[in-house]
Amino acid sequence: MTALRGNLVIGQSGGPTAVINQSLAAAVWEAKRHSAIRGIWGARNGMAGILKSEFVDLRKERPSTWAAVARTPAAALGSARKKPTPEECAQAVEIFRRHDVRFFFYIGGNDSAESAHLIQQEAERVGYEMACYHIPKTIDNDLLENDHTPGYGSAARFVACAVMGDTLDCRSLPGVKIDVIMGRHAGFLTAASALARRHPDDGPHRIYLPERPFSPERFVQEVEEDYRRFGFAVVAVSEGICDEKGQPIGAGFTGEKDSHGNVQLSGTGALGDWLASEIRKRTSISRVRADTFGYLQRSFPAVVSEVDAREAWATGETAVRLAVQRGDSGTVVLVRRRGPRYGVRYERRDLRLVAKATRGMPAEFIAASDCDVTPAFLEYVRPLVGPLPEPGRLRMVPVSW
Amino acid sequence: MTALRGNLVIGQSGGPTAVINQSLAAAVWEAKRHSAIRGIWGARNGMAGILKSEFVDLRKERPSTWAAVARTPAAALGSARKKPTPEECAQAVEIFRRHDVRFFFYIGGNDSAESAHLIQQEAERVGYEMACYHIPKTIDNDLLENDHTPGYGSAARFVACAVMGDTLDCRSLPGVKIDVIMGRHAGFLTAASALARRHPDDGPHRIYLPERPFSPERFVQEVEEDYRRFGFAVVAVSEGICDEKGQPIGAGFTGEKDSHGNVQLSGTGALGDWLASEIRKRTSISRVRADTFGYLQRSFPAVVSEVDAREAWATGETAVRLAVQRGDSGTVVLVRRRGPRYGVRYERRDLRLVAKATRGMPAEFIAASDCDVTPAFLEYVRPLVGPLPEPGRLRMVPVSW
Repeated sequence: MTALRGNLVIGQSGGPTAVINQSLAAAVWEAKRHSAIRGIWGARNGMAGILKSEFVDLRKERPSTWAAVARTPAAALGSARKKPTPEECAQAVEIFRRHDVRFFFYIGGNDSAESAHLIQQEAERVGYEMACYHIPKTIDNDLLENDHTPGYGSAARFVACAVMGDTLDCRSLPGVKIDVIMGRHAGFLTAASALARRHPDDGPHRIYLPERPFSPERFVQEVEEDYRRFGFAVVAVSEGICDEKGQPIGAGFTGEKDSHGNVQLSGTGALGDWLASEIRKRTSISRVRADTFGYLQRSFPAVVSEVDAREAWATGETAVRLAVQRGDSGTVVLVRRRGPRYGVRYERRDLRLVAKATRGMPAEFIAASDCDVTPAFLEYVRPLVGPLPEPGRLRMVPVSW
Repeated sequence: MTALRGNLVIGQSGGPTAVINQSLAAAVWEAKRHSAIRGIWGARNGMAGILKSEFVDLRKERPSTWAAVARTPAAALGSARKKPTPEECAQAVEIFRRHDVRFFFYIGGNDSAESAHLIQQEAERVGYEMACYHIPKTIDNDLLENDHTPGYGSAARFVACAVMGDTLDCRSLPGVKIDVIMGRHAGFLTAASALARRHPDDGPHRIYLPERPFSPERFVQEVEEDYRRFGFAVVAVSEGICDEKGQPIGAGFTGEKDSHGNVQLSGTGALGDWLASEIRKRTSISRVRADTFGYLQRSFPAVVSEVDAREAWATGETAVRLAVQRGDSGTVVLVRRRGPRYGVRYERRDLRLVAKATRGMPAEFIAASDCDVTPAFLEYVRPLVGPLPEPGRLRMVPVSW
């Protein structure tokens, strides 16, 4: 490959995270260091903005703005859930060619990697030389080839704190509490609720993952068992739980789909309310509540994992460096170093390896009971989330008269 | 009154908060300084534990435990929603008499003040000399006589952060977002969402309070107007919104009531989902989401207002000091000092003044539009919540070719 010279376009795509702007800021920061890159342009609302040539000049932002934006949740450039059609890919490459855009960066999950891959293929087809790089981000942690993905650690931190507080709350005013957590096909985020435990009787008492078939009957039985045993029950349920046939249970409550064919699961309390009503109907437990953590999981500004923020920055920086040095297309993946101390390496992979498909929790992270995680998962997730609050508990020694 | 000497019982009641254990720890800490107090006993689950003589010996806890417990959300002794009947009041006073309990402290909201008042009246009726003190706590901020209540500042901080993040999220992936916030009769907590604003186009674009009649038709119109104007719309809605006749709209979705006659509003996403469906039905807006913040608002361990934590401590400490010095019954109220610098005084009031009744937002805090707050409210609430995260925003200068 010859060294590329020209303009750069960067866009953000899919559901935002608390640290997606770290990757954006880092990519811009790194781009400024390379003379091969002239214009540094942001696409408004990802693919939607590219197709309308809605570009903003990111060299016109002050350095102090970047420091603040990097710490700000949600996509600073705006996002979109849009899979480009073949015609739109042709249109996008034509726009890139017209404006001498030779570097394209797309921050997102597997769908965004697929979009970047489609653009790459179209550019190759028409013989337009450019570098298309995907920069990984997803709270779902479901990208292939990655040990974990930027965005996951901060969302996992929110979930762990939320379930910790909710367990304390439910212990105070006993009942059954159902916490519905994001994750379409992968249970990683729901699984992170296990970090909330400090004592053997702490919730979450069960963790229901989309990787294992969900039976409402067994769920009610298990929750009732926990309630009888502990005097209260807190369970974490993935929004993506599926029945024996692999049909998402939550999909029955909404019909909406995006252009990647994904069913809307978040932004409604319907699944949690339905599960609560099943418990009320089939048991004598009177106090049953459900909370759906919703968009707070991915956008809460005050709960960020420092490791996650750092890795999101490094991922954006690495993508630009690779694109300039190699002049090819690809994605950056996070590979965990072996050994006792936590650390990652950033490596390049072909786009096709992360595009489209996703991964779920590996079997070694799921307990034999099908409704809990293993110690291996806790070891995996702990360094990604960072130190959590340490709640105190009274010994509660009965008064002796 | 003669100086009282004897044992102390303390209990926690009602919905917990992030700082309710500050008041508990402070009361125990202060009690240890007074020789008039012998046993320092905690009642498990408030009134429920008192009636079963379930007392724990709080002198048997280590000092380091208290430091950790004070920082831990939710009621460390367990809580209850239980209004004692006249027979139960007689029973409680009899138990107190049998065990020489001369000091009784009850941490909670207006219902708990009412319970403490009932116990006080029963003790007077039977001529048993004791001090009954209520220690205020409620995220609803609806106690009479108080400028504000411990627990509110931390919950308000969570709400402000959550709506700030959610606005950023909704700006990224535009649509309509409805955030349902706790508060049965008082809009203070929902109103705190206004602290999330930094720019004129930031959400929450509307704030719907229980103090003003809610019209679904007007709501849909107003949300659509904001969506057309800003390209997205984020609205904060109190779970306690009422129709023209004063009937809570959310009450239609659940039938549950506690022994104080309060309808269950939290722990379900039904109100938010219904409001979202109204918008979907009556407008052409396709992306409409609702999140119900639920129990996270009052129990999240990592988002606490420092001012709130400090005041919750001082309130517990003051109650014990007053009870020992005066040997009477009462409640501690927070009175804001006049002047440019924020500060509070802790004063004693008779229990009947805060028991039972509650207050809503005063008219001067509600905007003429009926769906926003006034600058006076922002001035009132800001010092209670403390400094918030400052999100960054790009200037978004279009590229000029």
